[in-house]
Parts: sequence; structure tokens; C-alpha cells
Amino acid sequence: MLSKSSLVMQEKPLILVTNDDGINAPGLRALIMVARPLGNVVVVSPDKPQSGTSHAVTMHHPLRLNLIREEAGFAEYSCNGTPSDCVKLAYKIVLKRRPDLLISGINHGSNASINIIYSGTMAAVFEGAMAGVPSIGFSLLQYREDADFSASGIYADRIIREVMHRGLPEGICLNVNIPDLPATEIKGIRICRQAGGTWIEDFDVREDPKGENYYWLKGVFARIGDGDDTDEHALEHHYISVVPVNFDFTDYPAMEEMKRWDFSF
Amino acid sequence: MLSKSSLVMQEKPLILVTNDDGINAPGLRALIMVARPLGNVVVVSPDKPQSGTSHAVTMHHPLRLNLIREEAGFAEYSCNGTPSDCVKLAYKIVLKRRPDLLISGINHGSNASINIIYSGTMAAVFEGAMAGVPSIGFSLLQYREDADFSASGIYADRIIREVMHRGLPEGICLNVNIPDLPATEIKGIRICRQAGGTWIEDFDVREDPKGENYYWLKGVFARIGDGDDTDEHALEHHYISVVPVNFDFTDYPAMEEMKRWDFSF
Repeated sequence: MLSKSSLVMQEKPLILVTNDDGINAPGLRALIMVARPLGNVVVVSPDKPQSGTSHAVTMHHPLRLNLIREEAGFAEYSCNGTPSDCVKLAYKIVLKRRPDLLISGINHGSNASINIIYSGTMAAVFEGAMAGVPSIGFSLLQYREDADFSASGIYADRIIREVMHRGLPEGICLNVNIPDLPATEIKGIRICRQAGGTWIEDFDVREDPKGENYYWLKGVFARIGDGDDTDEHALEHHYISVVPVNFDFTDYPAMEEMKRWDFSF
Repeated sequence: MLSKSSLVMQEKPLILVTNDDGINAPGLRALIMVARPLGNVVVVSPDKPQSGTSHAVTMHHPLRLNLIREEAGFAEYSCNGTPSDCVKLAYKIVLKRRPDLLISGINHGSNASINIIYSGTMAAVFEGAMAGVPSIGFSLLQYREDADFSASGIYADRIIREVMHRGLPEGICLNVNIPDLPATEIKGIRICRQAGGTWIEDFDVREDPKGENYYWLKGVFARIGDGDDTDEHALEHHYISVVPVNFDFTDYPAMEEMKRWDFSF
């Protein structure tokens, strides 16, 4: 057992905070407030909103880092790239090592179900997991700029503490979604699977002054399948959903089935 | 059994072709050559290279579609968006229905192992699978503009025919990678799992005329773990790798393990 003095001497954990809504997003500010009492915090976030950029990395123009603020136990940078770029720059240029924890968000809007695949918030989290860093993404089911992150903060703190205590299985990161409710109405935390679902694409078709069409992407989310163990089900029933996700996309049952194929047609 | 006349009357399958290297990429031309004898072909591809855009979708500017060529059984469009945008526009605006098959590529460069997560080629394939369309992504392990796609074409044809005959399990799409070898040196096709791996990020740090730093992302691929059933192993041994992939990212063993967590720390 460690003596009290060695405990006091222990360095605080180094926590990397990022998001995809950009450095000025209220959701990021809420997450920083949660993180600061838990360790030394470095923020590296996009200088503008990067929602829907998924795992995009910047290869066609150079990246810039901008130090915004630095004080004891805290530093904040913006970057002109995507969330994936931010994490890579943080490792190599800012921290010069892997952080002890990576947290991303709090996203303005859901990343439950298939939304995970488009999410810049969760792309940053996958970057963490790929580098062996315990990593968690947080999203609130409210898009509005003035969303209320008070309940999210309480639960993010609880989930981060649990992960700091227990660690995460190798290669696993967490996708946490939070219903847009006051803390008193949130029933608890549920470990879930990713709900089946898809976006039914739709477009606003408009005509420019020359008479040429242009298209604004919109879409409607459609749930596929059912089950009381999904993130969507938990959220609908006022629970916070926690989905452990993996970046090995192999479908092992299909792999076994396809081994019988002979490619002879 | 269908009579001969009804077979003759059967419509040809509608094949959507896309990629992430852009409408002028030689790899796309090679895939179109494979597709045309197999059905009616519609191409919707980005008007410029979109490598590394992953699942990004365009929400901050409107999309444009440009009809390049149309003839019996064939049409070709370019689009100013990402591969995901191309597929969504194809469904809703160009085809006004789901195609019978979606093929993407042939990518200039590997999408084996963790590269799948950054890949625009495979993002288009996931878009197909999410809409219930049998979908296959093809990549050649050669970045060069003048890569030789002749062997790729032969094997792409064989794999597409097998999928058209057998279909794919629900929610499954295929990530096909092809070694950069003459057809005579390719040993065959292997069904594989996604190899463990990560990009060790690195940056070229340069100074602009004002003395400010800027950063060019580069990186080195590092394989993690081993096994003779991975895509990387197959490719190294001169086989074509076929990995069945799924867009449910839930890690089910971790989900069971984490159900014991009590969030009490």
C-alpha cells in the first residue's frame, strides 16, 4: 500500500479534452468543468464546428495550432483541422506523450445508433482507443446552442471516475448518450448495444439564379429492429446509454459463413 | 423455374459505382469496365479526390450534381461532395430507388486493417449496406496514379459475380484489398478478419515566413497482434483479402463485462 506522502506525490492524471462542435461550444465548456477537478487538462479542439466530419483527416492543407490559454494544470489550443487531426496533434506536438484519458464532447446532439459512424466526437474517441488511451465520448440529445449541460456534467463525472478506477478492456471505448432532461428525471446509466438504424436520405432541391439545381442534404432517422437492450431504447426510457464500441469492424459469423464461398460463378 | 423468355425479359441489375479518388481516377475507370458487362451502370463520384474523408457528410454548403455522359445502360455524374454524399444523392436524386449492387473503388492504396476507418471508399460501401444494398469496396495496394488495375479487374469481376449470385448476409458489406501483383502471381482469394493496427502519427513541422509553425500530417502504419487469418497476412502472402464488415460497432463481450459496473466511485 502506498504511504500518504507517495500518494500526495503522485502526478495527477493527464486528461485530453476535445470535441467536434469547436472550441467555443458550450458542450466543450461543460466537459472542461467536469475534467479540471479530476486531473491536469489539455484541450485541443477544432477552431470551427466539425460535426459530421467523421474520421476525416487533413492531408491537402497544413494544420495550425493556436495556444489560447495556459495556467497551472490547464492549457487550451484550437486547431484548424478535424477532431482526428486534433487528437494526433495533441499526442505528438502538444503533449509529446499519450494522455491518461481522452474525453470528447459534450456533443450538441445524439450520437446514438448509426449516428456514431458520422460523428466527429466519436472519431476522436476511436483515435484515443487506437492509441491505447481509455477514451469516452459524451453527447446530449439536444442540438441547441443554449442546451442545458448541468445533468450531463453530473453523469459525465460519474462515468469518468468509474473508467479512471476500472480502466477499459483493450481496444474498447465508450459512446455515452444523455437524454435532454433535468438530473432529477434521469433514471440512471445503462450499458447498451448500438441500436439498428439508418438515415433515410432526403434533399432540399433548389434552383440557383442560373436555373441550375443544387441540393441541401437532410434526412430522417429510422430505427431498424427492436430490443430493450439498445441505446435508443435506454434514451427513450430516460436512461443514459453507454455503448462499449470496438474498431474491429469484422463480422465474425459472416466470416465463417463466407469461408464456404468458392468464387466460381 | 423461369421460362427462357421470362429470363430474357428480366431487367439487368442496376449497379451504382462510386469511389473516393474522384471521377477521373484510373481505378474508377477500371471498375466501370468490370461493371458494364454485368448490368446497367450509373456512376456518381466526387469531382475531386476525397481520400481520407471517411464518413464525412456535407452540411455547410449545398451539393451539385453534374451529368457527364449518358448512353444506353450507362450514365456518369460527378458531385462536389464526399463519397457518402454521392451515394445519398444517387439514391434520392439520380436513381430515385436503391440500386441492386453498390461497388466502390478501385481505390489507389490499401484499405486493409485500420485504414478502413479513414476510408472514403469504404464509407460509400457502408452507406450501401445501411440501405440494404449488397455493397463491395475494392482497393489496390498501390498509390500511384499509373497503377496497373488489370489483375484487380479480373478478381473484382469474380467477387462481384459471387455476391450477385449468393447475396450478402443482412447488414454485411465487403472490404476487398488486392496486392499489387500481376494476375499470374496472385494466389487466390481469402476471407479474413481485419488486422489489428494503428497509425503512429507524425508531423512535418515547418515554419512560415512569419516564423509561425505549421504541420503536415504523416504517419507510419504499425500492425498490432498477429495471426494467419488477417487481411494484412493474406496480402503479404499474395492473396486477395475479403473482410466481411458490419456497422454495428458494439463490443458484446465488453457489454456483458461492463454490466457489473455500479458507477459508485
